[in-house]
Amino acid sequence: MGSRMGFLYFPHLILFSWALSAHLLLAIGQRSTYIVHLDKSFMPTVFADHHHWHSSTIDSIKAAVPSSVDRFHSAPKLVYSYDNVFHGFSAVLSIDELAALKKSPGFISAYNDRTVEPQTTHTSDFLKLAPSSGLWKASGLGQDVIIGVLDGGIWPESASFRDDGMPEIPKRWKGICKPGTQFNTSMCNRKLIGANYFNKGILANDPTINISMNSARDTDGHGTHCASIAAGNFARGVSHFGYAAGTARGVAPRARIAVYKFSFDEGELTSDLIAAMDQAVADGVDVISISFGYGLIPLYEDAISIASFGAMMKGVLVSAAAGNDGRGANVLNGSPWILCVASGHTDRRFAGTLTLGNGLKIRGWSLFPARAFVKDSPLIYNKTLAACDSDELLSQLSDPERTILICDYNADEEVGFGFSSQISQVNQARLKAGIFISEDPRVFQSSSFPYPGVVVDKKKGNQIINYVKSSVAPTATITFHETYVDKERPAPVLAGNSAQGPSKSYLGIAKPDIMAPGVLILAAFPPNLVSESIQNIQLTSDYELKSGTSMATPHAAGIAAMLKAVHPEWSPSAIRSAMMTTANPLDNTKKPIRRDNNVVATPLEIGAGHVDPNRALDPGLVYDATPQDYINLICSMNFTEEQFKTFARSSANYHDCSNPSADLNYPSFIALYPFNPERNYTWLEQKFRRTLTNVGEAGATYKLKIETPKNSKVSVSPQKLVFKGKNDKQSYSLTIRYVGDNDQSTNFGSITWVEENGNHSVRSPIVTSLIVQVWE
Amino acid sequence: MGSRMGFLYFPHLILFSWALSAHLLLAIGQRSTYIVHLDKSFMPTVFADHHHWHSSTIDSIKAAVPSSVDRFHSAPKLVYSYDNVFHGFSAVLSIDELAALKKSPGFISAYNDRTVEPQTTHTSDFLKLAPSSGLWKASGLGQDVIIGVLDGGIWPESASFRDDGMPEIPKRWKGICKPGTQFNTSMCNRKLIGANYFNKGILANDPTINISMNSARDTDGHGTHCASIAAGNFARGVSHFGYAAGTARGVAPRARIAVYKFSFDEGELTSDLIAAMDQAVADGVDVISISFGYGLIPLYEDAISIASFGAMMKGVLVSAAAGNDGRGANVLNGSPWILCVASGHTDRRFAGTLTLGNGLKIRGWSLFPARAFVKDSPLIYNKTLAACDSDELLSQLSDPERTILICDYNADEEVGFGFSSQISQVNQARLKAGIFISEDPRVFQSSSFPYPGVVVDKKKGNQIINYVKSSVAPTATITFHETYVDKERPAPVLAGNSAQGPSKSYLGIAKPDIMAPGVLILAAFPPNLVSESIQNIQLTSDYELKSGTSMATPHAAGIAAMLKAVHPEWSPSAIRSAMMTTANPLDNTKKPIRRDNNVVATPLEIGAGHVDPNRALDPGLVYDATPQDYINLICSMNFTEEQFKTFARSSANYHDCSNPSADLNYPSFIALYPFNPERNYTWLEQKFRRTLTNVGEAGATYKLKIETPKNSKVSVSPQKLVFKGKNDKQSYSLTIRYVGDNDQSTNFGSITWVEENGNHSVRSPIVTSLIVQVWE
Repeated sequence: MGSRMGFLYFPHLILFSWALSAHLLLAIGQRSTYIVHLDKSFMPTVFADHHHWHSSTIDSIKAAVPSSVDRFHSAPKLVYSYDNVFHGFSAVLSIDELAALKKSPGFISAYNDRTVEPQTTHTSDFLKLAPSSGLWKASGLGQDVIIGVLDGGIWPESASFRDDGMPEIPKRWKGICKPGTQFNTSMCNRKLIGANYFNKGILANDPTINISMNSARDTDGHGTHCASIAAGNFARGVSHFGYAAGTARGVAPRARIAVYKFSFDEGELTSDLIAAMDQAVADGVDVISISFGYGLIPLYEDAISIASFGAMMKGVLVSAAAGNDGRGANVLNGSPWILCVASGHTDRRFAGTLTLGNGLKIRGWSLFPARAFVKDSPLIYNKTLAACDSDELLSQLSDPERTILICDYNADEEVGFGFSSQISQVNQARLKAGIFISEDPRVFQSSSFPYPGVVVDKKKGNQIINYVKSSVAPTATITFHETYVDKERPAPVLAGNSAQGPSKSYLGIAKPDIMAPGVLILAAFPPNLVSESIQNIQLTSDYELKSGTSMATPHAAGIAAMLKAVHPEWSPSAIRSAMMTTANPLDNTKKPIRRDNNVVATPLEIGAGHVDPNRALDPGLVYDATPQDYINLICSMNFTEEQFKTFARSSANYHDCSNPSADLNYPSFIALYPFNPERNYTWLEQKFRRTLTNVGEAGATYKLKIETPKNSKVSVSPQKLVFKGKNDKQSYSLTIRYVGDNDQSTNFGSITWVEENGNHSVRSPIVTSLIVQVWE
Repeated sequence: MGSRMGFLYFPHLILFSWALSAHLLLAIGQRSTYIVHLDKSFMPTVFADHHHWHSSTIDSIKAAVPSSVDRFHSAPKLVYSYDNVFHGFSAVLSIDELAALKKSPGFISAYNDRTVEPQTTHTSDFLKLAPSSGLWKASGLGQDVIIGVLDGGIWPESASFRDDGMPEIPKRWKGICKPGTQFNTSMCNRKLIGANYFNKGILANDPTINISMNSARDTDGHGTHCASIAAGNFARGVSHFGYAAGTARGVAPRARIAVYKFSFDEGELTSDLIAAMDQAVADGVDVISISFGYGLIPLYEDAISIASFGAMMKGVLVSAAAGNDGRGANVLNGSPWILCVASGHTDRRFAGTLTLGNGLKIRGWSLFPARAFVKDSPLIYNKTLAACDSDELLSQLSDPERTILICDYNADEEVGFGFSSQISQVNQARLKAGIFISEDPRVFQSSSFPYPGVVVDKKKGNQIINYVKSSVAPTATITFHETYVDKERPAPVLAGNSAQGPSKSYLGIAKPDIMAPGVLILAAFPPNLVSESIQNIQLTSDYELKSGTSMATPHAAGIAAMLKAVHPEWSPSAIRSAMMTTANPLDNTKKPIRRDNNVVATPLEIGAGHVDPNRALDPGLVYDATPQDYINLICSMNFTEEQFKTFARSSANYHDCSNPSADLNYPSFIALYPFNPERNYTWLEQKFRRTLTNVGEAGATYKLKIETPKNSKVSVSPQKLVFKGKNDKQSYSLTIRYVGDNDQSTNFGSITWVEENGNHSVRSPIVTSLIVQVWE
């Protein structure tokens, strides 16, 4: 491990300074909410339960510290008790009270409550999920597994949450549906079995706040969308304003949903999020999906990371969003115990067709949310108008209401007159429609299209301009509402804004782990919120196309849940390994998956590749990891005792740091090298040791296939693994030796264990990357 | 009959003068198109067929009349030969050529080509049509009958014209699908078995015209809508922009459709219409639906009347629209041999719900074609703004984009600031939404609703205004896309613009005959036409809500076709009788059907009442009439020989005028009285004789029930009719004696023959009306 650590520049100083300033800000005379970790083994036996212990602790602080009254809180106050994902509580405390608390028996650590940042349905087809084979068949479409969706609640009336075809609920699952504002328990059913909400943290922070929707009802749409992606029932005849029309369905249409709302219009705080995850684990969910994340924050103050560690230790996999910040090591949820999900485009596109007066038909991108009538209208291309950036467009056109104007490509999209500004001008001028020449990838992951028109690429744009120039009275007709599978472009393609690894929280594991569909996914949406607009009129919809790693995450969660249904004995690590080693690094043209800017994507963007649920069902071998393996990992993290215990809690066997190791038995490999002006890297070598468990039904022999990253040498020993039977384990070692790189670029390769006389192949990506590039 | 005629003031003088002036206009040195009736018995045997005779006739005129060249036509020219609905042709002739033609052997009459004036899918439920019982079951949903739809063609790609579930086409029906512009024969199928088009008349009138869609393809929507109402297949998941969402289906979903397009963007002319009906009868359609009509025109120049007479003589019932001209004896298609159809509202409404800030929910009318987001927006009522008639609304509101404005009821709707003007103002001011207080019935039969808002009645309007006045910060939320069956209002209700009888063309029979659903009917629509608008953006739709007797007509045609399927031996008169005597004069509250202004409707508005297809299946008795009965009727019409032959043609037995009688064996009774300042009507008496045919399976006895019209005495003899077996006929006589009326109003009653120990009851409306009122 020694040589490996040489690669890593821990960013904690930067993160500390940020965290410190936040502390200072909050410390001035005010109480605020802290998340407090306790060692439960210190709990005196006189207490009937831990909640009693926590209240008593707060009471004793109240007695010990001279009373102070702040704006909201006349005394320290317990917010939540936690006991599942970790042990502890959240409480409203002053700095003095916190200091007193720190002296209490069993105190481990405390950190400030923080705001969590938020991050369907062709995809089951795109993922080749079919009722008669593969993972859908094996899992009964996810029957009898429960996906906990931690988000902004749910719109229970959506057709996606009807319980047609769902079996009765086992008894242990009754009674986890909590009533509240505009939400009663009859809104739960055999599909939506649980609905709970957590906002004591928000109220602790500011007791004057009125929680406008004090229940699990969704007031934002994000939660409803995510839940229906993961496990929405079949919902016929739905669409996004006529686009993507058909039957929506979640990835696991027969899985059950339990929602835990911690995101409110009034905010989303760590304390509530932990309470939500604590409850989800207590309730017994099989998988957790969370499309939220923290930005720059050390692991031991990252509530999702901490709570997910607790969930993983209890056998619950957490699927979390990689984030939508795009380039530059901004990936969120990069903890080694989380399944970190990147977002990709599918093969489906939304279009309008332009028919020119000469009969030429050109398909362009459109999501105008209605079928506008644009027929045989005069088509104008005029160099002085073509930027479509002038308020006086209207005054220069003789018959604006009948005119289709061509808005030419403007390279300087960042400045403002890209598509969204141009369509706004065409709207203000009340033209008949616009033709927008643009290749800006952002256009093709947005559903906003408030005025009739189409977007075409430069080549098609030139065809149109040539027609206009050569015609006496050029005209065009546009038809809308087209949805098609695009055979001309490769798929999947990585979304341009899907965040790139490695994770600033922990560099030792390549993140994200996997890529799943996340661009313009059709899924359920509350009918009382703004979905799209036509001109100044805002519109609502029961289903909406949304984009982001938020949408990719429940796809991965749904697949993980179905794997759990088929293989209840698999650990979270085994499930993640099955998904990663069977993921596809190639697109449907058999070439490496690319970003939307046409550059080949690296494992620091797509992880092991695009998830392949049917292959994940039967991976052959898995890289498993036990709770102790994760303890060993955090033992290697140079944490303070307090930080360590924040994860490892009090349980005796979690304290065994006799074998610290950053070399987690993970299904991917990363080697980071520092900037070196001499470009002399011959001294750089990193060794890994891995153990594979045979989850196939019989013994099998696997042979090695290596794709070596450019500028590295990879050696593996042994080169052949013989598994005698099911659950047999075999280990190998892998060494990456970096041999220099003039471009100091990110390179990647893979190793694949290929079954002899069998169908299994078990692939792990290898990535080498310049660390200084990442951290600048 | 003598006394009866005393009631009638023929309007022919007025109509003649109109027709004469048209003649004069066209006579000046120009050729124009004439419809020419010939007596086929004069056809020399040397001619192989009638077409040959017609060409030869034109050729002989060419030889006889000194040649003249007009703008378009260098010589007289044959346009169409007709041989089915009557015998004759249409031809382009000069006045001199016409004069020569008149001397040709077999010439009967000639009149100028004229322009025809144009006039879905909860209704099968509303009509209680169900697959497992009644008319749908008995007719196999109309299986194997053919409805000829004479209109503006069809959009063959509509889901309503798919042929799922349709049986193979009998051989005799192949080859009646004619290709043309954007239409090839493969567009016909087992549902749409025929598609033909007729525009030679248009081209004869102006050969320079370019027929832009020279095929049966619909460029207007009217034909597609009507065809799918009559016999559209089941089409799932359709709606009018989200309203009326569900499965559309025609009245006879398994009947076949043959379309005959005579209405083009370039016009619609009599000559083409006759050609269309001639072809439909030749093709063997079972029923014809025609949602067109002529205004002020005598019967013997009314091409629909003439061609329908021919169709009826060949056993084909013609269902035609009563017209949308509302009050004042403006009913169209009032010929005794046509089924004349009035239009009613169903029990379905389209709504938006207003939720006031105080929680009060108020449902208002809305067809805004999208789901606008209007949530907790400030609600303003301001007397100076409430007329919503000012261009400067915007400047007087502090935050227009967020404001919901109440537009108050303005009694003077005719002047312009009714709903449609007010919504246009709210749109221009770009407010959030409008609340329109209006009780104008026209609002509730229009689908135009281009800006977010709701229409409420005065009572609800006052509730809203009171809330605004009593609230510090009044707000409202509006939700859209509501479709519901209104249990609070009676249904059906007569559409306010459904034309009123009696017919100026012929007063002796009460028209219209029957009422069918015709308001906001959802049916198929071409996807390339403007359906509705949002602000200035025009929108298209595959299905649309349309209103008018045009929509009622194919409902009646579909029902007639199913009756024909079950009772192939029934004559057109028997089918009409079955529909009329079983029609319901009461609404679903068991009270007489009313107009949309809440006044009880008379038989001169709703005929026998609202069609009841399941009862029509088994009427017990029918009032039948043979072709000779209709000859006897026209024998009574004081026609000239020429006018008479225009209907009766050449066939020898049609010439038997030995028994002229206006007392057609009709299922309704009308007595018209002249204005009489002394109000002394004791001398007024009208006698009718009727014969009923038992179409029940066994013998039956019927007893009389009379509802006497106010101010009249009705006597019937005998009062009991005993039918020995099926097809047995029994006659009775009925006398209406008018006894005076201070108000000189329209009164009505009925006689009903009620089966003893059986379920049948056979009702006929009786109407007495002041004739001078009508003809002023």
